[in-house]
Amino acid sequence: MARNTQVPADHDAPPITKILAEYVSGFASRGWNDAVDHEAHRTFLNWLGCAVGASRHEAADAALAAVAELQPAPQATVAGRSGKVDMASAALVNGITSHTFDFDDTHLKTIIHPAGPVASALLALAEHKGMSGREVVDALVLGIDVACRLGNLVYPEHYDRGWHITGTTGMLGAAAGCARLLKLDAQQTQMALGIAASQPVGLREQFGTMTKPFHPGAAARAGLMSALLAAKGFTSSPRALEAPRGWAQVVSTKAAWNEATDELGQRFEISFNSYKPFACGIVIHPSIDACVQLREQGVRAEEVERIELRVHSLVLELTGKKEPADGLQGKFSVYHGCAAGLVFGRAGEDEYHDDIVNRPDMVELRRKVVATVDNGIDEASADVTACLKDGRKVHVFVEHAIGSLQKPMTDAMLEAKFAQLAEPVLGAGKTRQLIAACWGLGNAADVRELVALARP
Amino acid sequence: MARNTQVPADHDAPPITKILAEYVSGFASRGWNDAVDHEAHRTFLNWLGCAVGASRHEAADAALAAVAELQPAPQATVAGRSGKVDMASAALVNGITSHTFDFDDTHLKTIIHPAGPVASALLALAEHKGMSGREVVDALVLGIDVACRLGNLVYPEHYDRGWHITGTTGMLGAAAGCARLLKLDAQQTQMALGIAASQPVGLREQFGTMTKPFHPGAAARAGLMSALLAAKGFTSSPRALEAPRGWAQVVSTKAAWNEATDELGQRFEISFNSYKPFACGIVIHPSIDACVQLREQGVRAEEVERIELRVHSLVLELTGKKEPADGLQGKFSVYHGCAAGLVFGRAGEDEYHDDIVNRPDMVELRRKVVATVDNGIDEASADVTACLKDGRKVHVFVEHAIGSLQKPMTDAMLEAKFAQLAEPVLGAGKTRQLIAACWGLGNAADVRELVALARP
Repeated sequence: MARNTQVPADHDAPPITKILAEYVSGFASRGWNDAVDHEAHRTFLNWLGCAVGASRHEAADAALAAVAELQPAPQATVAGRSGKVDMASAALVNGITSHTFDFDDTHLKTIIHPAGPVASALLALAEHKGMSGREVVDALVLGIDVACRLGNLVYPEHYDRGWHITGTTGMLGAAAGCARLLKLDAQQTQMALGIAASQPVGLREQFGTMTKPFHPGAAARAGLMSALLAAKGFTSSPRALEAPRGWAQVVSTKAAWNEATDELGQRFEISFNSYKPFACGIVIHPSIDACVQLREQGVRAEEVERIELRVHSLVLELTGKKEPADGLQGKFSVYHGCAAGLVFGRAGEDEYHDDIVNRPDMVELRRKVVATVDNGIDEASADVTACLKDGRKVHVFVEHAIGSLQKPMTDAMLEAKFAQLAEPVLGAGKTRQLIAACWGLGNAADVRELVALARP
Repeated sequence: MARNTQVPADHDAPPITKILAEYVSGFASRGWNDAVDHEAHRTFLNWLGCAVGASRHEAADAALAAVAELQPAPQATVAGRSGKVDMASAALVNGITSHTFDFDDTHLKTIIHPAGPVASALLALAEHKGMSGREVVDALVLGIDVACRLGNLVYPEHYDRGWHITGTTGMLGAAAGCARLLKLDAQQTQMALGIAASQPVGLREQFGTMTKPFHPGAAARAGLMSALLAAKGFTSSPRALEAPRGWAQVVSTKAAWNEATDELGQRFEISFNSYKPFACGIVIHPSIDACVQLREQGVRAEEVERIELRVHSLVLELTGKKEPADGLQGKFSVYHGCAAGLVFGRAGEDEYHDDIVNRPDMVELRRKVVATVDNGIDEASADVTACLKDGRKVHVFVEHAIGSLQKPMTDAMLEAKFAQLAEPVLGAGKTRQLIAACWGLGNAADVRELVALARP
């Protein structure tokens, strides 16, 4: 009888489920400036490249084998593969592949990878229904806005508790975007958000396993199905996000309601999206960037006695694996990341192959990396000193890594990244065409032309 | 920089993911006494009756319409309907229908409705694969054991936080049961539990909407898919349940690890399952039972001046709707429940039709019910006094309601409940055959014979 069974306080929460539903269903097509619209195209291009690039990964094989047990109808494409599966399974698998290399986009305010859950759901639905590219771009901007605003509302307490925020906000972004594509009215969209609110996906404990990329995939699937259910009259709480026992207060101790509504329709969270130059968690990027810069300053691996690394505690907490056994574990090792930056001057997917992670000179070099926590250093920064065998020291401080909002990747860099990922799967010619189709998405009469280019 | 990014303490958590996986994969078929095996059959019978009974509900129609958008392969049956859908969708829809009437089973220690997520997944998979009834019964006992043990581990703090525990443990029970059906080894079963651990479904805020029964359905689907993924080599954290950022510590502030392992293989949680005589939340049952007893003692509705009800606070918190607008809301109204008990002497699904809830005499009578919270009264009990117009008072105290572990429904009562639910859908003859098939499940060579009887 001692247990506390009181309903949590209502905190005068505004009706954000309704407000967001009205916004998503009623906002004007392309109701934003060219910079926002261009960012949507960059987000889409980057997402598709990652999905194509990982389409032959064993996680994709396993997921497709499981899906095959359902004997799915050929409705939608898994990017980089030749067969089709039902649209919900395509959303699942594209969500998995786009995050498999940890090479996708990041909404830096929340560490959400928004395109995985949102774009994966949208493209599958749009392909099956033969929708226009403009509809997809509109839904992408609005769906990502919903996911990231709700992320802002609960971050960082929600993430600190152990949730993988990409899959625990992503199903809401996917539901919002799919509701928009399906032209649901405000009330149905509200129901779609409500159904999705009951389905957060993802524990941070899964980092380093296939279930990490499963999170955006399952969130994409859940969001798509929530919109389909709402379209057929399925009901949910109209206050599913803000009620005392709704999403925000169940999954987080922080609920900054204003984040859902401030500057709604004026500030678009996709503007704060960023793209990874390195195929690993964003917290390692400043350290890798610093090591790339050391290399550019002439430091060679064989001269190194020791690399002294000073970083925020989150870096070691998330990526502190000292002795990664394979490529996947390597992505959670700031030590391997630094070694790759110094030896190769890059850390793309190739630098995370098992062979590279286990190469003796790489193992030797990463053991020379000594990392120290210094919470006076921002998690966006890294302070790196190479101590050489001849006694010299070379120091680099990276305030903002390449790929950050302060130092964004250029369109050309995004194209090069796309090509590196897609060419082995699609060949150079199709890859070039697909890049052009991505830049032209907003003008495409039917997304199926673009999608056809994503099949080998 | 002020945020706490420390990993939670490990609390010397035992490796329960591994222990439960070894248990599920390695335990002997029918490795329990006859009472446990019989309880599994009672659980299955009660579950199937509920699913058939609600198969024509608009929630089922909406869910099937959404599923139809995927053009599913005809692999498995939705109980009470004639067509087939893919096995994952069948798990989803049967999970929804079995909980739609709030008439299913309850593991009273945790308020988990275990058959919804577990049996729905098992029967769909077993039908598609043509498995034996014995395999299903074994998987049902073990799957429910996993879900309810994990419920014990986090209850009540997890529930009090706002999670609908049926869908947030059910995906683990379904994954365990499906892994058993698929004959996964201990390591694969561990992966299946891990994949499922990332997919808790359900907020209590959804109570009173179709998304409440969606929770066991989505959990059934998630568990089935987790087992299929694990069978194909998909990986997850081997400590997904107990790690500092694993399931238990992310979704709950309580983690009583011993609940997962105490008397494992000796005490089976299905022994603590109960079945509802009334088609509403279990917390109302003592109040309804008391009103049925008042009726049996000769109290007639038209004599009543006032019904004084003293109950635990949880009763009003969960079912305190004073003016329910329809049948669904009526299930969350202890006031309507009391009126039904007094007027009809029962509260089956028929007593929750919209027409009955809105009947003027029912509205008038429920307004005469005055409920008072008294936390000196257990939530399993109710103290009810009928104050009559002539000044008489008739008092009934129900310590344990019919349907509780202390006063369980008999097999004959379960059959009568099944018949009442199934006859309007399947007809009397098929209903009788289906009841016999449920009692004989453990000896059935192929579950498809039983399933055929569940189609009209």
